[in-house]
Amino acid sequence: MSRSNLDLVNECDGFPYHQVDAIAYAQHVATYYHFQVEGFECTIGYLLPSVAEVLRGLPNWELDDDERTITLIGCNNAPERTVAMTATAMAMKATGHFKVLEKWRNEQYGVYGPRQQLLFDLERSATPLFGLVTYGVHMNAYVKSKAGELKIWIPRRAKTKQTYGGMLDNAVAGGISSGEKPYECLVRESSEEASLQEDIVRKNVKAAGTVTYFYIRDERAGGETNLLQPECQYVYDLELPEDVIPKPNDDEVEQFYLWTVGEVRKALARGEFKPNCAMVMLDFFIRHGIITPENEDDYIEIVSRLHRRLEFPTL
Amino acid sequence: MSRSNLDLVNECDGFPYHQVDAIAYAQHVATYYHFQVEGFECTIGYLLPSVAEVLRGLPNWELDDDERTITLIGCNNAPERTVAMTATAMAMKATGHFKVLEKWRNEQYGVYGPRQQLLFDLERSATPLFGLVTYGVHMNAYVKSKAGELKIWIPRRAKTKQTYGGMLDNAVAGGISSGEKPYECLVRESSEEASLQEDIVRKNVKAAGTVTYFYIRDERAGGETNLLQPECQYVYDLELPEDVIPKPNDDEVEQFYLWTVGEVRKALARGEFKPNCAMVMLDFFIRHGIITPENEDDYIEIVSRLHRRLEFPTL
Repeated sequence: MSRSNLDLVNECDGFPYHQVDAIAYAQHVATYYHFQVEGFECTIGYLLPSVAEVLRGLPNWELDDDERTITLIGCNNAPERTVAMTATAMAMKATGHFKVLEKWRNEQYGVYGPRQQLLFDLERSATPLFGLVTYGVHMNAYVKSKAGELKIWIPRRAKTKQTYGGMLDNAVAGGISSGEKPYECLVRESSEEASLQEDIVRKNVKAAGTVTYFYIRDERAGGETNLLQPECQYVYDLELPEDVIPKPNDDEVEQFYLWTVGEVRKALARGEFKPNCAMVMLDFFIRHGIITPENEDDYIEIVSRLHRRLEFPTL
Repeated sequence: MSRSNLDLVNECDGFPYHQVDAIAYAQHVATYYHFQVEGFECTIGYLLPSVAEVLRGLPNWELDDDERTITLIGCNNAPERTVAMTATAMAMKATGHFKVLEKWRNEQYGVYGPRQQLLFDLERSATPLFGLVTYGVHMNAYVKSKAGELKIWIPRRAKTKQTYGGMLDNAVAGGISSGEKPYECLVRESSEEASLQEDIVRKNVKAAGTVTYFYIRDERAGGETNLLQPECQYVYDLELPEDVIPKPNDDEVEQFYLWTVGEVRKALARGEFKPNCAMVMLDFFIRHGIITPENEDDYIEIVSRLHRRLEFPTL
């Protein structure tokens, strides 16, 4: 069944909007425990009740079942909170109940407060259990022929990859570790994932905004379903000379295709792209005048939905 | 006092967000009458109580003071609703109470329902009294020198213009009439406002998304203050050859400057741009890699705020 561009957006940005359906939004929000940090007046993520239940009685956690809050307590600063969060995540892993923790990444993600201050670092694989905002970089690499035709480099993920195996991706994409700058993350990932030389990337790459959305995880993400994953992807464009060929550098990418816009659009409609990569591709098509108000009936909604304002503090 | 980029966003997108401050949002929304249309389950705009009061007792209007709704009734289709809205706007003009109606434009704007169906047309100058979503086109025209330096064409509005007189603008900007396509509107306005030849525009222009925001009108907009103005601007980029010079074609523009990025940024910081034109300029700088995550601390918030998802149906 062919997917419209709005279908692709709905698949990735699945959390209801208060301003569109206040009742559905309120029902969703009332389901979850709101993650708060002692000393800060804001919610930084949503937890499923089944996850919050496991934290009941653990040190550093206070559940309020009436207010539906779960609060990290007894820590005075970011390093102390990081210790408490790490101990919590390791205790959760030790129960063996949480599939997402089986792929422990040994990579710390930063979680931020209302003034962009670091609240704590947390092991990457644990962030969806707490519904925390995570950050990444996504880059489209493309070629313009002398005749002006645009072709886009599209990698296919290895079929053996546990998450979204065999699906299509953006040329370069990766998560940003705590303290890492988006641009430096992008240069590093360009080498690691696509064998692109640092000097070529630095010379040609252009920052082009962000794509933000609120994803409800499904089985393709691996591990528990219905976990909440609000994300911010810093978006980059890289125009490459025709003789620079991205190549897989590890076993995560099967191969790179150089596709016309028409080929990419067909693959999008077939649902072959990893959901958030489809969002980044739509953003690329909109910024480059390929999707236009005249050829896309849902243009206004799609542009807004690609840039969701999240209800949690962000960097 | 120098304005940050986020200050510029706040000035134009001033309506509170539920997801950021639910209390301020609820207080705002409770102040207004919600404009509904018989047969449709949605709110299409917010009216100040002082405006709703004037409609009490007029034919075709039903006020519910408990629910804070004001409903257009007794019409079966778009043409009938257009007749009723026109009669209402003319009756309001006849009272002499509404300054915004003194600049009657004789231009019909389209107002749309939840499935993008036309609900009615309404005289342009009346739309802010009803808090209705309006649509426009904004284009930045720029030149790239052989050395790669970007310069941007910036018009200054005539000092005699009643709205935002003497402020800086985007190269081409205009409202979209009911039934008009954004692209055709843009081509027309490019000729009318900047003397740009149709073939040059059609050949070089690129659609590049939308900028959406929820503006609370201040005195610079002319007429009543605090009227609500949710807007969607279709955004275009036009790269011009160095020998094509935009020229004022009527008395609305005083002159065009060709400015470096640095000159534009200084004028933004001085608050010299019309508020929504500042938004479109920020969007341009973000899409072109001029404002980046590394040089703008509020990058994520700004990108989202430039693309607000409105609570009203849009085209």
